[in-house]
Amino acid sequence: MELTVLGTSSALPTSERYQSAHVLNVHERFYLIDCGEGTQIQLRKNRIRFGRIDDIFISHLHGDHVFGIYGLLSSFNLMGRETPLRLYAPDGFERILNSHLDDFGIILNYPVEVYPLSGDGVKIIREDRYLDIFAFPLEHRVPTFGFLFREKPKDRLMIKECIDRFKIPVARIPAIKKGNDFITEDGKVIPNEELTCPAAPPLSYAYCSDTMYFSKLATYVKDVTLLYHESTYDASHIELAAVTGHSTARDAARTARDANVGKLLIGHFSSRYKNVDHLVEEARELFKESYPAEEGKCYKIGRQE
Amino acid sequence: MELTVLGTSSALPTSERYQSAHVLNVHERFYLIDCGEGTQIQLRKNRIRFGRIDDIFISHLHGDHVFGIYGLLSSFNLMGRETPLRLYAPDGFERILNSHLDDFGIILNYPVEVYPLSGDGVKIIREDRYLDIFAFPLEHRVPTFGFLFREKPKDRLMIKECIDRFKIPVARIPAIKKGNDFITEDGKVIPNEELTCPAAPPLSYAYCSDTMYFSKLATYVKDVTLLYHESTYDASHIELAAVTGHSTARDAARTARDANVGKLLIGHFSSRYKNVDHLVEEARELFKESYPAEEGKCYKIGRQE
Repeated sequence: MELTVLGTSSALPTSERYQSAHVLNVHERFYLIDCGEGTQIQLRKNRIRFGRIDDIFISHLHGDHVFGIYGLLSSFNLMGRETPLRLYAPDGFERILNSHLDDFGIILNYPVEVYPLSGDGVKIIREDRYLDIFAFPLEHRVPTFGFLFREKPKDRLMIKECIDRFKIPVARIPAIKKGNDFITEDGKVIPNEELTCPAAPPLSYAYCSDTMYFSKLATYVKDVTLLYHESTYDASHIELAAVTGHSTARDAARTARDANVGKLLIGHFSSRYKNVDHLVEEARELFKESYPAEEGKCYKIGRQE
Repeated sequence: MELTVLGTSSALPTSERYQSAHVLNVHERFYLIDCGEGTQIQLRKNRIRFGRIDDIFISHLHGDHVFGIYGLLSSFNLMGRETPLRLYAPDGFERILNSHLDDFGIILNYPVEVYPLSGDGVKIIREDRYLDIFAFPLEHRVPTFGFLFREKPKDRLMIKECIDRFKIPVARIPAIKKGNDFITEDGKVIPNEELTCPAAPPLSYAYCSDTMYFSKLATYVKDVTLLYHESTYDASHIELAAVTGHSTARDAARTARDANVGKLLIGHFSSRYKNVDHLVEEARELFKESYPAEEGKCYKIGRQE
C-alpha cells in the first residue's frame, strides 16, 4: 500500500502547490482520491499510468477538488479507454458531469458508473479483492465525505507445531486459518485459539478533506495506519477555520491522537504559508507522528516496527 | 509587447507540456489567450499577477483550451477581485460558464462581460489605449477563432529640420504628426509627406489554434510581427491532420510565408513527439524564421533589425 500525494494546496494553488489529489496504490491498482485542476498533469509527472485507475473518489463539490476531472476523463477517451470507470461522488455530481460533458460534445467511449454519496454514518461503498472501502461524513460547508481504505482481514496464522501435534490434514488448514476449530480423530475439539495466532491487523488509509474538527471523526478513522487530514490553517487562525469549515494543524493532530492512528499526514495548506514547518510542529505537540504531505512523494503505508 | 507561452501541448498533456494558454503583455496589461487546464498554476509559476489580467480570449470550446477557466475565475474571486473581466468566447459559452459556476454555487464578486464570437470575416472585438484586437474564423471541427493583437497606428515622425525651415509653431506639430499639411505664413501649402516620415509599422501578434490549413488565413494574419500557429503534427501525418482539423508544421510555415510574417512560433504539439526539433526543421524548409513555442519562455515581439 503506497500513497502518492499530487496536490497539497487549498483552494488557491501556488507556484509550488497543486490542488487536492491523492493516489493510493494497492497491488498496482490506483485509487484516485479527489481530482483538483492539473491532476492529469501531476499523474503524468509522477508516471502513474492512466489505465491503472478504475476508481475515482470525490470528497465534495468544491472546484479545487473536482475541476481536474473533465480533462482527465477526456484524456482517458483520447487514449482509447474502454474499461469501466467507477466514480464515487456526492449526490448530484452525475448530473453536473453529464451536463458539462454534453456542453463540450464529449461522448465517452467507456462506461462511467457513478455511485452517489449521501447521508450520515460510515458506509461501505466498494469491496474488491484487496480492499474494503468506506465513506463517512465530514463537516464542511457543503456535503463532504472522507474515505477509508482498509485491507481485507487476513487469515489467522497457523502455529506450525500444532499440525504435527494434532495430526491436522493439509486440507483442513484453510478452514482453521479462517477461524474454525479442529476435531481430532478421537473426537477432541481443539479451539482455534490454540492452533493459530492473529494475523497482522489490516493496513488502512483514511482521507479527510475538507472538514472542521468534530469529535466523532476520530471514531470513523480509529486505528488507521495512515491518516491524511487537512490542515488549512495554523492555530492562530482558529476563527477563520471555523468560518470556512476547515481545520488547524492542531485540530488534525487532535483527531489523530484520539483515533490512535499510526501516522498523520497534513496538507491542503493555505497559500499564505510558503513554508509549513510550523504547522507540522503544531501538530507534533499533540501527536508526535505528524508529517507534511509533499507533492510527488510516495508514502509507504506499513506496519510500525 | 511580450508573449509568454504557458502551454504547448495538444489535447493530451504530457509530463513536460501543459495545454494551450498564452499571455500577451502590452505595457503591463496581460491578455490571456486560451485557458487550458492548469493555466492558473502556470500563471503562478511564471509570476504573472492575476490582477493584471482583464481580458481572456477563448478560441474554441474544446476542453484543452477552456477547462482552466473555472479554477481561474474562482481564484480571482478568492483573491478579492472586483474589477470587471472581459471574456471573448464562441457564442454559447456564456450559458455553459454560468451553468457550471451555478452547479458549484460559485457567485463571482466581479462582473464578467462576455463578448460572443460568431460569423465569418475579420472583426474588431476590442479597442483599448494601446491595441486594436481582432477575431477571425479558423477551420476546425467546431467554431474556432484566431486573434490578432495590433498596436494602434503610431503618429508619423516629424522631420526636425522642417520645423526651422518652415517656421512651424510647436502647437501645430501634433496635427502634422497626425498627417495634416502645413500652411506657411504666406499661404503656401507644404504637403505632409515633405514634413514627416512614416512611423514604424505597428507591432502585432496573431494566435491561430486550432485550425487546418486554408489559404485565406494568410490574408487574416498578413504582415504580423509574430504569428503563433498550431503544428499538431509533422507532414507524415497530413491525413490525420485533415481528419482532426489540425495543421502540420509545413501547413503553419506555408501560412507564415504567404502572410509575410516576421516570425513563426509553432506549438500545440501532439503528445507523440517527445522532441519537436523535426517539426521546427520541417517549418524552416518553407519559412526560415520558424521557432518552437517553449513553456515559460518570454518572446519579445519587436521590429526586425
